[in-house]
Amino acid sequence: MNALEWTGRSLRLLDQTKLPRAIVWLDCQTHQDVARAIADMVVRGAPAIGAAAAYGLVLAAQANPALESLQQAAVELGNTRPTAVNLRWALQRMLRAADLATDHLAAVLEAEANRLAEEDVAVNRAIGRHGAELVPAEARILTHCNAGALATVGYGTALGVIRAAVEQGKRVEVFADETRPYLQGSRLTVFELMQDQIPVTLLTDSMAGFLMAQGRVDLVVVGADRVTQNGDVANKIGTYSLAVLAKEHGIPFYVACPLSTLDLSLPSGDQIPIEERSASEVTGVGGLQLAPDGVKVWNPAFDVTPHRLVTALITERGVIRPPYGPALADLLR
Amino acid sequence: MNALEWTGRSLRLLDQTKLPRAIVWLDCQTHQDVARAIADMVVRGAPAIGAAAAYGLVLAAQANPALESLQQAAVELGNTRPTAVNLRWALQRMLRAADLATDHLAAVLEAEANRLAEEDVAVNRAIGRHGAELVPAEARILTHCNAGALATVGYGTALGVIRAAVEQGKRVEVFADETRPYLQGSRLTVFELMQDQIPVTLLTDSMAGFLMAQGRVDLVVVGADRVTQNGDVANKIGTYSLAVLAKEHGIPFYVACPLSTLDLSLPSGDQIPIEERSASEVTGVGGLQLAPDGVKVWNPAFDVTPHRLVTALITERGVIRPPYGPALADLLR
Repeated sequence: MNALEWTGRSLRLLDQTKLPRAIVWLDCQTHQDVARAIADMVVRGAPAIGAAAAYGLVLAAQANPALESLQQAAVELGNTRPTAVNLRWALQRMLRAADLATDHLAAVLEAEANRLAEEDVAVNRAIGRHGAELVPAEARILTHCNAGALATVGYGTALGVIRAAVEQGKRVEVFADETRPYLQGSRLTVFELMQDQIPVTLLTDSMAGFLMAQGRVDLVVVGADRVTQNGDVANKIGTYSLAVLAKEHGIPFYVACPLSTLDLSLPSGDQIPIEERSASEVTGVGGLQLAPDGVKVWNPAFDVTPHRLVTALITERGVIRPPYGPALADLLR
Repeated sequence: MNALEWTGRSLRLLDQTKLPRAIVWLDCQTHQDVARAIADMVVRGAPAIGAAAAYGLVLAAQANPALESLQQAAVELGNTRPTAVNLRWALQRMLRAADLATDHLAAVLEAEANRLAEEDVAVNRAIGRHGAELVPAEARILTHCNAGALATVGYGTALGVIRAAVEQGKRVEVFADETRPYLQGSRLTVFELMQDQIPVTLLTDSMAGFLMAQGRVDLVVVGADRVTQNGDVANKIGTYSLAVLAKEHGIPFYVACPLSTLDLSLPSGDQIPIEERSASEVTGVGGLQLAPDGVKVWNPAFDVTPHRLVTALITERGVIRPPYGPALADLLR
């Protein structure tokens, strides 16, 4: 099941707010449609957002091939979500392609977006291949949020590692945090893994520590929304707590991240903007309000895990170990 | 707002599964009604369960004053929930009173249950008074689940500490974990504190670590369902993760527990039976299913926090510091 499909004239997005209860596709005919879908989390996951935004620029160019209007569309798409850097990376890549185009702007951009999307799947397969080497022959793996096929153009980053390990014949059992408030774990990760017949057990976020204390987790693998110069990782809220808990229990904590998730312009995670989303995501679930009216809420969508808690970064160019600063700089050279 | 009201012929329970959206009272006319209400979490919280079970035995004695039938009722009530020891403590206290009674069994038990309930409120006020000494003049306090008036006969244990600090004029700001899967934090703790006009901010369980990392928590205080000889604490699932996170950030981690929560028959928390509840609490919320059909779920209702992570136990006889073994034995001598 793919998160997005390009039709040539529109971008079809699988509405992830409705999964797994309903399979509904949203047909985006303008870049504004795409921007709204990203802001509303119809499509989510750093790599998937990047690819969706790239196709958003194709729609903008088809509607108006003037470079200034394209740049305006890029600003609108870029402003939808602040934390994941893949969004900015994809828009910059598309604008560079536009700058080099002498003619047929929309066609040039369409080709570039298709390349970006194809590369994403290849990148994820490479991440999976490298990451699978870190997975023992029998492994109980804890993951958080959804860094799967639905969070990317296909195959997934953290779930790509799990898929590759399974393809290599390893016996893998997955524990999936439900990932409040948006429930990407119970709604998306469980759904993906059950479709692939990979054994998965669902638990609430608050149970992960007790599971580790019982000796039932061999490794943790998660995705990333932004990785800075020093190896600090912004990822879905709750990732930081898991990393602290993994350290306490001597469990390896791995982060699967394509190079497009690196932001070497930032020295550390302290500089990453953390999106805060609406109170209603926390006061209720699926439209059902549970907390009292008017309660004050704190709802950061991401947190920052300091590099000292990260055992290794898994990229398409291999597994990176600390110290991350020099290793990441080398990688992008 | 009280969790329970004794009418003389029935036990009225505020249905906590429906709060805060609806105020519904359940009228229990038999001990079986009470047992069902405890199992279904209409009434929950270790001290409140103990008091409810005590009144359950009064109803049993009113229906049939034979001692064997009372003992059978105690077994039924005791089997409803395995982790909180206050339930067993209350039933044993009532059976001792029954053994000593020469006549008028139901009236003797009614008087004993009333005493138990009155004592619970006095105990909680003493816990609050002692605990408030640990609260700085300005304090940002994180709590988990609901250890408030609704979890007790009145005033609360962990929330009793917060209430006493506020009564002493301290400036307190509370952060309440929502506490999946049953949402005692968002549904009950937030409700209680808003009624008392104590400032409270709701967050998901996964956000507590990031909040601590930002330096926004001065202390953590939680309740307890059972405390063993060595000071290990069984409490609502997620408590253990919070304790690990508090240690990582150098934040004091306090457990408010009446002496009725002590179980000195167990050397350590490893021996505490941990209740596992139904998958449906995790796959959905408020009757709304969110995860795919048939997913495997792990749903322990409690976890165990080892004594080394507990800064102090707050009891009605004062604040207990490590080493807990000798201090607890002294306390009960």
